[in-house]
Amino acid sequence: MSGIFEQLVAKLREISDLQNIEGLLGWDQQTYMPPKGNDARSRHIALLSALAHQKTCDPQLGQFMDDLAADASLNEEQQALLREAKHDRDKAVKVPTDLVHEIAETAGQSHAVWVEARGKNDFNLFAPYLKKLIDLKKREAEAIGYPSDGQPYDVLLDNFEPGATVDKLNPVITETREICRKAVQAITAAPKQPHLDILKRFFGEDGQEKFGTMILPQLGYDLQAGRLDRSVHPFTSGFDVNDVRITTRYQENWLPASVFGIIHETGHALYEQGLPVEHVGTPLAQALSLGFHESQSRFWENQIGRSLPFWEKFYPALKQIFPTALSNTSLEEFYFAINTVVPSLVRVEADEVTYNLHIVVRYEVEQAMFNGQVPVDDLPDLWNQKMEDYLGLRPASNAEGILQDIHWSFGGFGYFPTYLLGNLYAAQWTAALRKDMPDLDAKIRAADFIPIRDWMREKIHRHGRRYTADELCTRITGETLNPDHFGQYLKDRFAPLYNITW
Amino acid sequence: MSGIFEQLVAKLREISDLQNIEGLLGWDQQTYMPPKGNDARSRHIALLSALAHQKTCDPQLGQFMDDLAADASLNEEQQALLREAKHDRDKAVKVPTDLVHEIAETAGQSHAVWVEARGKNDFNLFAPYLKKLIDLKKREAEAIGYPSDGQPYDVLLDNFEPGATVDKLNPVITETREICRKAVQAITAAPKQPHLDILKRFFGEDGQEKFGTMILPQLGYDLQAGRLDRSVHPFTSGFDVNDVRITTRYQENWLPASVFGIIHETGHALYEQGLPVEHVGTPLAQALSLGFHESQSRFWENQIGRSLPFWEKFYPALKQIFPTALSNTSLEEFYFAINTVVPSLVRVEADEVTYNLHIVVRYEVEQAMFNGQVPVDDLPDLWNQKMEDYLGLRPASNAEGILQDIHWSFGGFGYFPTYLLGNLYAAQWTAALRKDMPDLDAKIRAADFIPIRDWMREKIHRHGRRYTADELCTRITGETLNPDHFGQYLKDRFAPLYNITW
Repeated sequence: MSGIFEQLVAKLREISDLQNIEGLLGWDQQTYMPPKGNDARSRHIALLSALAHQKTCDPQLGQFMDDLAADASLNEEQQALLREAKHDRDKAVKVPTDLVHEIAETAGQSHAVWVEARGKNDFNLFAPYLKKLIDLKKREAEAIGYPSDGQPYDVLLDNFEPGATVDKLNPVITETREICRKAVQAITAAPKQPHLDILKRFFGEDGQEKFGTMILPQLGYDLQAGRLDRSVHPFTSGFDVNDVRITTRYQENWLPASVFGIIHETGHALYEQGLPVEHVGTPLAQALSLGFHESQSRFWENQIGRSLPFWEKFYPALKQIFPTALSNTSLEEFYFAINTVVPSLVRVEADEVTYNLHIVVRYEVEQAMFNGQVPVDDLPDLWNQKMEDYLGLRPASNAEGILQDIHWSFGGFGYFPTYLLGNLYAAQWTAALRKDMPDLDAKIRAADFIPIRDWMREKIHRHGRRYTADELCTRITGETLNPDHFGQYLKDRFAPLYNITW
Repeated sequence: MSGIFEQLVAKLREISDLQNIEGLLGWDQQTYMPPKGNDARSRHIALLSALAHQKTCDPQLGQFMDDLAADASLNEEQQALLREAKHDRDKAVKVPTDLVHEIAETAGQSHAVWVEARGKNDFNLFAPYLKKLIDLKKREAEAIGYPSDGQPYDVLLDNFEPGATVDKLNPVITETREICRKAVQAITAAPKQPHLDILKRFFGEDGQEKFGTMILPQLGYDLQAGRLDRSVHPFTSGFDVNDVRITTRYQENWLPASVFGIIHETGHALYEQGLPVEHVGTPLAQALSLGFHESQSRFWENQIGRSLPFWEKFYPALKQIFPTALSNTSLEEFYFAINTVVPSLVRVEADEVTYNLHIVVRYEVEQAMFNGQVPVDDLPDLWNQKMEDYLGLRPASNAEGILQDIHWSFGGFGYFPTYLLGNLYAAQWTAALRKDMPDLDAKIRAADFIPIRDWMREKIHRHGRRYTADELCTRITGETLNPDHFGQYLKDRFAPLYNITW
């Protein structure tokens, strides 16, 4: 029977390799590909995607899985590998090829129309495509199926956050919403406010790159197994445990874009570099979920990278690189500025407190899309009303409202909540980490990050998809996801900064 | 029947796409891949290679070809596509998969041993691997087969230069050998000699890059469909007509490495960018042969790039970039220096006159390998003797003798002659071009390269593999390959420079 298991692994590795090759093509497309190369690149990516799908649907792969499901000799690790591989394959096999193609084609068209609609601030242009995409994704969800007490949107959530359902998420998200609303109200009412303009002074690209490449390896990112490049939209892409690359962008009048962008992507990259090399090509060497992935980037970006001990260590170096821009700015002023909380209309520019409220708006709008209670044409009003309710701001246009994000234009419904989950998990990990490592702040202040990285590696990375999110969260913290840790973190970080309580 | 032709093209395009994806992985491996990524990269490349081979051997593809072979309605272009595709497939199908694997595996081991053997100057280390590779490639040749008046080495030549055979090459190569020996003798005996040390002064990398990127687009290389990067060994890699990339290296005490390296690779790239986009994925959008490919790089590097009119145009710009290094050097001195002819032991450092003699040595040694008249252990002596006979130099060690080139270490027998053919074709094209374009020198002097590029595009690039080498050469020049053009070119270029006749 062990022979079959090995054959299963070999087949899974081929599929994974094809996906990773596709990943490299995507990385190149966003970094070095000459512009005219795009047509051939799309064809190459589509071919790899089709080959991976074909190999996933290979009946022999299914037969191996069935044979192994009846095999009592599998150890717990092997069972987990089988469970996750079967979960992926079942979903892939259940969606008819025609529907896969129709979704891909519609997504391609919709994306182009969305770009135009956003440019022209015209939701009506995009509406028919959004309707069609919602319909197609509903059909996908129905094809995959869900329990009688479930709903189509659950299936879409599961695409990004395995095991997530509306019933499980609703209480978490509602509690988070109230935590954030209270925090934002208290913070914006505080008399003491930071000077955000500090970060909008001139910071040359070379200096930003110098600072970024200086901190990268200190955080434990292995540059022999990775690299930093530039792209319009920053991202992390791993093609193997030993080849995990990050990108950033440099904005010379907005320092946080590269500084916190690089730390954020490094968090993603540490997860990918920490996956168990012996399981490469199988679910045991894949990230558990997008929420878990985001918990790593947010942990490093916010819990570590926006902390006072971090800047006690690195502010002198930053000041040395930018002596003019920071000449009259104290560590305390800088630290306050990078923790500015202020409601705004655009998600990608949001601070970590208001950010979750942007996600809540999207989550609730997505539910409205999929339970059919609100017609697509009324979604902009719903969006605007929720923005006003939760953030106190009403978009003056759909371009800076419902049309702002790319996700829906390619059918990525169910993706947004993983950002919020990442923020919550990050706070929960930090609470557990502080118990295991009482001198955490001293370690950060000493740039002694390797023990912190290794704690994450030990607790999360090395397990891949061996456990479910609930199981692993419980193993690490003694409980499943609990937004209270995030609530407490906000108080610990922002109450002293703004000299308030709530 | 047209439906079958289209299905054939679709299948060929998939194979070509897989090969081009593999090409991108190779490009990345040599430019940006982090060092630890190599193991996964090798696995990814092997997978793509296996998939392409599998699709090439697909019986349905063979059936399409058989069906179409009997179809009288195909036009001449379609017939050419079919002929070339069938040629490729027949060769691929005839070699047993076991043998393909054994060659790949032995080549991998041999390459590692060759690196060690060269480092230790120990041919005996490499000899058993070379014996095995020769034996395996003989088996490959036997499996593919050849006419009764042919020989195994013909099959290997055909891998790189379709249609080439020993019987056809021997007279060409012997004549070239004598042309070059006479030229070298006359040139080295000349009292007037250039000052090569001009090119060994300090030329900063930035300046070299500036000069290279300045001339690239002027030569007609489309940077919207290509790019210039750095790699240890310069190369050109095309993944599509609209994505053709070149690399170079910068040696700060040897200006020609980047200047002529970039022009050389641009020549290759112009060929790839000039292939007919409407035939992408088929032999009609592939280069005719390696010899033809090299004719393009050598044409731009030597016929154009080392000409006086070229430097009448560009020497002022070069001098502006390197005012110190070139302050006391006149155009004439510089032009003489870049056309230095001096026998040396190492092929990759050879000038364009002695270069062919290096190739002749290798061609004759390869023939000895494959006709079995000289045991492998005696090949170093054969090498050294031929070096002495043709170049007047005897290597003091095998490291700078028979072990110097990478090609045999991966089984690339039959590759070397294409370099020589490229030199000959380049001279023959120039002779034809001068007839069509009497003001060629004036055009070069004005950096008016587009008509020259377009002449090559019209005469060579756009045809892909539609014609055989002999057919296309005859269409362009009225005769098949004739070394006299190269002989005449040497006299035209070097006799006035060295102030001699021969």
